[in-house]
Amino acid sequence: MFFASDNTGPVHPRVMEALMRANTGHVPSYGTDDLTRAAEARIREVFEAPEAAVYLVATGTTANALALACLTNPWDTVFCTPEAHVQVDECNAPEFYTGGAKLSLVGAADKMTPEALEAALTHHGSGDVHIAQSGPVSLTQVTENGRLYALDELRALCDVAQRHGSAVHLDGARFANAIAALGCTPAEMTWKLGVDAVSFGGTKNGLMGVEAVVLFDPARAREFELRRKRGAHLFSKHRYLAAQMLAYLEEGLWLEMAAQANAHGARLAEGLRSCAEVAFLYEPQANMIFATLPRRLHRKLQAAGAQYTLFGTLEGDADEPVRARFVCDWSVTGEQIDDFLRVLA
Amino acid sequence: MFFASDNTGPVHPRVMEALMRANTGHVPSYGTDDLTRAAEARIREVFEAPEAAVYLVATGTTANALALACLTNPWDTVFCTPEAHVQVDECNAPEFYTGGAKLSLVGAADKMTPEALEAALTHHGSGDVHIAQSGPVSLTQVTENGRLYALDELRALCDVAQRHGSAVHLDGARFANAIAALGCTPAEMTWKLGVDAVSFGGTKNGLMGVEAVVLFDPARAREFELRRKRGAHLFSKHRYLAAQMLAYLEEGLWLEMAAQANAHGARLAEGLRSCAEVAFLYEPQANMIFATLPRRLHRKLQAAGAQYTLFGTLEGDADEPVRARFVCDWSVTGEQIDDFLRVLA
Amino acid sequence: MFFASDNTGPVHPRVMEALMRANTGHVPSYGTDDLTRAAEARIREVFEAPEAAVYLVATGTTANALALACLTNPWDTVFCTPEAHVQVDECNAPEFYTGGAKLSLVGAADKMTPEALEAALTHHGSGDVHIAQSGPVSLTQVTENGRLYALDELRALCDVAQRHGSAVHLDGARFANAIAALGCTPAEMTWKLGVDAVSFGGTKNGLMGVEAVVLFDPARAREFELRRKRGAHLFSKHRYLAAQMLAYLEEGLWLEMAAQANAHGARLAEGLRSCAEVAFLYEPQANMIFATLPRRLHRKLQAAGAQYTLFGTLEGDADEPVRARFVCDWSVTGEQIDDFLRVLA
Amino acid sequence: MFFASDNTGPVHPRVMEALMRANTGHVPSYGTDDLTRAAEARIREVFEAPEAAVYLVATGTTANALALACLTNPWDTVFCTPEAHVQVDECNAPEFYTGGAKLSLVGAADKMTPEALEAALTHHGSGDVHIAQSGPVSLTQVTENGRLYALDELRALCDVAQRHGSAVHLDGARFANAIAALGCTPAEMTWKLGVDAVSFGGTKNGLMGVEAVVLFDPARAREFELRRKRGAHLFSKHRYLAAQMLAYLEEGLWLEMAAQANAHGARLAEGLRSCAEVAFLYEPQANMIFATLPRRLHRKLQAAGAQYTLFGTLEGDADEPVRARFVCDWSVTGEQIDDFLRVLA
Repeated sequence: MFFASDNTGPVHPRVMEALMRANTGHVPSYGTDDLTRAAEARIREVFEAPEAAVYLVATGTTANALALACLTNPWDTVFCTPEAHVQVDECNAPEFYTGGAKLSLVGAADKMTPEALEAALTHHGSGDVHIAQSGPVSLTQVTENGRLYALDELRALCDVAQRHGSAVHLDGARFANAIAALGCTPAEMTWKLGVDAVSFGGTKNGLMGVEAVVLFDPARAREFELRRKRGAHLFSKHRYLAAQMLAYLEEGLWLEMAAQANAHGARLAEGLRSCAEVAFLYEPQANMIFATLPRRLHRKLQAAGAQYTLFGTLEGDADEPVRARFVCDWSVTGEQIDDFLRVLA
Repeated sequence: MFFASDNTGPVHPRVMEALMRANTGHVPSYGTDDLTRAAEARIREVFEAPEAAVYLVATGTTANALALACLTNPWDTVFCTPEAHVQVDECNAPEFYTGGAKLSLVGAADKMTPEALEAALTHHGSGDVHIAQSGPVSLTQVTENGRLYALDELRALCDVAQRHGSAVHLDGARFANAIAALGCTPAEMTWKLGVDAVSFGGTKNGLMGVEAVVLFDPARAREFELRRKRGAHLFSKHRYLAAQMLAYLEEGLWLEMAAQANAHGARLAEGLRSCAEVAFLYEPQANMIFATLPRRLHRKLQAAGAQYTLFGTLEGDADEPVRARFVCDWSVTGEQIDDFLRVLA
Repeated sequence: MFFASDNTGPVHPRVMEALMRANTGHVPSYGTDDLTRAAEARIREVFEAPEAAVYLVATGTTANALALACLTNPWDTVFCTPEAHVQVDECNAPEFYTGGAKLSLVGAADKMTPEALEAALTHHGSGDVHIAQSGPVSLTQVTENGRLYALDELRALCDVAQRHGSAVHLDGARFANAIAALGCTPAEMTWKLGVDAVSFGGTKNGLMGVEAVVLFDPARAREFELRRKRGAHLFSKHRYLAAQMLAYLEEGLWLEMAAQANAHGARLAEGLRSCAEVAFLYEPQANMIFATLPRRLHRKLQAAGAQYTLFGTLEGDADEPVRARFVCDWSVTGEQIDDFLRVLA
Repeated sequence: MFFASDNTGPVHPRVMEALMRANTGHVPSYGTDDLTRAAEARIREVFEAPEAAVYLVATGTTANALALACLTNPWDTVFCTPEAHVQVDECNAPEFYTGGAKLSLVGAADKMTPEALEAALTHHGSGDVHIAQSGPVSLTQVTENGRLYALDELRALCDVAQRHGSAVHLDGARFANAIAALGCTPAEMTWKLGVDAVSFGGTKNGLMGVEAVVLFDPARAREFELRRKRGAHLFSKHRYLAAQMLAYLEEGLWLEMAAQANAHGARLAEGLRSCAEVAFLYEPQANMIFATLPRRLHRKLQAAGAQYTLFGTLEGDADEPVRARFVCDWSVTGEQIDDFLRVLA
């Protein structure tokens, strides 16, 4: 019963096989090999963006930090939500990579509204040299609390940004889960709306450790390459990043895994919903569930070996509701969910 | 005939098998898993340093940049040689990670002398607030030109650094090759001489992408962890770094591969030496050879498919000597060397 | 009728005379001259802090940024209010000087409460490597909105900080106005409460451009000196900073000017209060008034030549209240205030 | 007998008078006042550069660091000489302000040759992502060792830079001394040769603390303004910088002082030359003399109260030559020089 995070599960066997296949002979290093070129081309196809600059890196924070750095001056502020991963989970990596830009918090919790963004961009775009200047907007899809922006919501935010001359970055650590949930294409969720740069996650969805950065404006390519090297994120044996990404995008494996994770998330949510003592903090829309359960239930679940994130302790009033996060990764099985729900019942 | 670099070859099969074995079930992320703890413990054993703080990262530049950042204030200067990897091959990563420290060049080419270091440390340790202040000394072993510091040479440099209160960092991208060549222990080449921090390379010696940073003073551990996360170098699926490192250190695989690479380097050097037209720039001591060959020979070798680094072009006077670098990685075969030498002859 | 800011007025004549007196002969540069030593000693006396490290710089942002940088790691977060000068008026200078630390906003508007600070320090002090780590607390006294922390309020905040191991920085751009208003000593408002570092302002109170940084723990002295030089804030002709500061502290000129500015602020506030259409945003406690006036009155005042900060435009509904800031510096006269109030009436 | 530095002397009386005149009434802050506009306009006239962006700052290191930061990416290298002020006397300020760029040393001592520059630019302009990329060239005129580049020498260096697409920065801490010595116009020594940015010094030539940055390409203006504010170098009471600069440029005061300093430098050099035991390290061309004198003479001079920079100690062999630097600022008198030479004789 492993619901702690979507980065605790194993790598998909087809990805491991791809790594094995790639492990033969000598190939050029630092991303000049054929596999890397193929992976980059494949990503461009998936995004229907033949001109995009595409790069593979190993962690989600790398993707976010480098992408934002290419869009932000040191005297700018990035606009993100109060619970954005870039704000709360990256130990100042965005500040580091941008050379000391500020992050300004817009909206509530994990979502931003066009009105709030409009106000923030207006203030920081006033031209006053004393304040942080308007930089890019960073949105997360699937959000940190497991919610989705509808395409219309995204478009409205992109429109505001564009009107103010700000670029839009999409933190897609769970990009595949969003696509699977919305049933749209990558292009429809990104550049067709006005998104300029995407962190296209793989690690949380069955890869060993690969994310792609997609920059729809290739004019930013050279800067990205230099920032990547300077940040020590250019791998010498690049073929092993590429092999993972190729396997990921082959025959829809990425969407297959994400759809499975979402479906299991929904099944788990359904089971939790049937328990009167469970209250959802947010309506689950992908593979993550945020809910409160009375401490009594947490004790029972954890005693039975269930693993998930508890925002609090097991000690205290048995009836007090305590918040928790449950995540289904691609490898969680229906049996595990059934076991969990049996303990809960 | 693949002599371009020791990062162009495949991963050792035993390492790939270890990755496969590690790929089962759910384990905690971000380095809190059992495999990571085991790998860290194993490295402490190998270094006979039970108190050392040990971390796994994915690239050599990461290891160097984070290790140096823990030893350097932004107003300091790092002392390294004019051809040090940190100076010439990392696109300002040390400057970036240290927050803008300077690199001062000491010694000639790839080696430093105690006299030159003494002078540099004296100057930058004068207390004058206008100049860059004395920071750590960074030495590379095996050096960038394929040479070795004898243990006595290293000790003399460490003594100077210690007398001036400067820490010593060892860039050991080819640490295994140095140990195999010198026949000493890791402890004898590092902390027993006064080395404070080591970049313990694996990627150039048969791993997919893992280096360890060994900090002999555990007081620096916490800072390293925060710098690693802030630099976006903390992997979520950390077990796959650990599995590689454990396989590397198991039953001496690391030294077996390095000894093989060195032996093949020696065999290639021997063959080249027998050719009157070849001149060595440096006496090869490990798995790298720097030599000049007349352009005529380069043309012949490259036409036959030999891959190596040519510092110049094939166009021009056929008799003009042109510099080249030949590297043997663990996977280069004796046959390949024989083929190469046959073409040369 | 000049109420735009306390940095628009002239330098006090006694300060100018001191500059003239200092302008004779050759003296050592970079702060090694006798006048500088005397100014530093005098500040230590004023603060009853014989061990303190004391430095003169030319702008308030310099004082804040350097002081905070000495107290903050790049992976930390500074805690300040949403309207703190360091957050809203320094174009990311704190982020720049700290090497990319974050500013976390605590409290409402320009004041912080112990409860809010406790919560923030608890969260960021959890040890979790993914989040920004607890850094110093920065408080402003007089606050940006012209209010004062009572000594008890300051003590309560310092106690919370101390319990969590965080240092406290006091942005005292209007330090003199606070002392004049509270009637306490500099020591009573700083180190006796637990303040670790002070930006001791002079520029807003009759100097040409001098602020002192007072670090009560002299262990931070060397780092400050190197950060100051690296930041290009070490003046060669340092005597001219020192001469200003000495004149400032001589025979209580600093408090005389501040008391005068406060008294004029009170007189202006009294006049405004008698106008039914004026509403105070904050109860004025020093030399700054934040109030709303109907647009009609703004038009009248500005037509008559009154200068102050209008947070809005003169165009629109004549009866709509529009926010404004009025500041009295040392040189504003009672006549100017009377003129202003006559126009208002 | 004050020859320690050109920043130890007093401010010119006409500059002090200008400060007094400026000290009346309320004027807008942060450089939006009339005096500042007039000073900027006057500098544009002096440089015959009606489009240039012009800024006043308080220290030479500020001028250099901000100017270079506007011309340099963090992954670039600045090219300067081994003895450039930006390399040896600014405690890593250029590295700090550029966000971690490297300084690469070109030429010998304090002068660069076109050949050396060509080689450096070719190497760093190769496109290789692993190395520091070609950034701007920084030249100092008068050089740190008191020498001059002839206009032809400067032109040759600018031509090389331009061919490689690199900008040229001129550190003119002693710009006036160079103009006075060469007898050319500011335009002839800068933009007409291809110089892009100038640190136009005043502090070493009779001002209290003002330097101008002149950016001939106004497209860089906005970035400069934001970097200045973020670096805490934007003064609130800006009129006092402007007043100094206006007095400096009025009726040729700047050139008058520089010519005087140069003439006294020449007179001092002449006197030294007549002493057989004095050897010049460099042929003096402006107001600085680098020479060796036997320790015996140093003892005699210093006992008589002469102040200058001794690169060594008074202890040791009386006949051993020891290096020294003698600088004449505008305020050194002919009498002082005669006194000095009398002691020497």
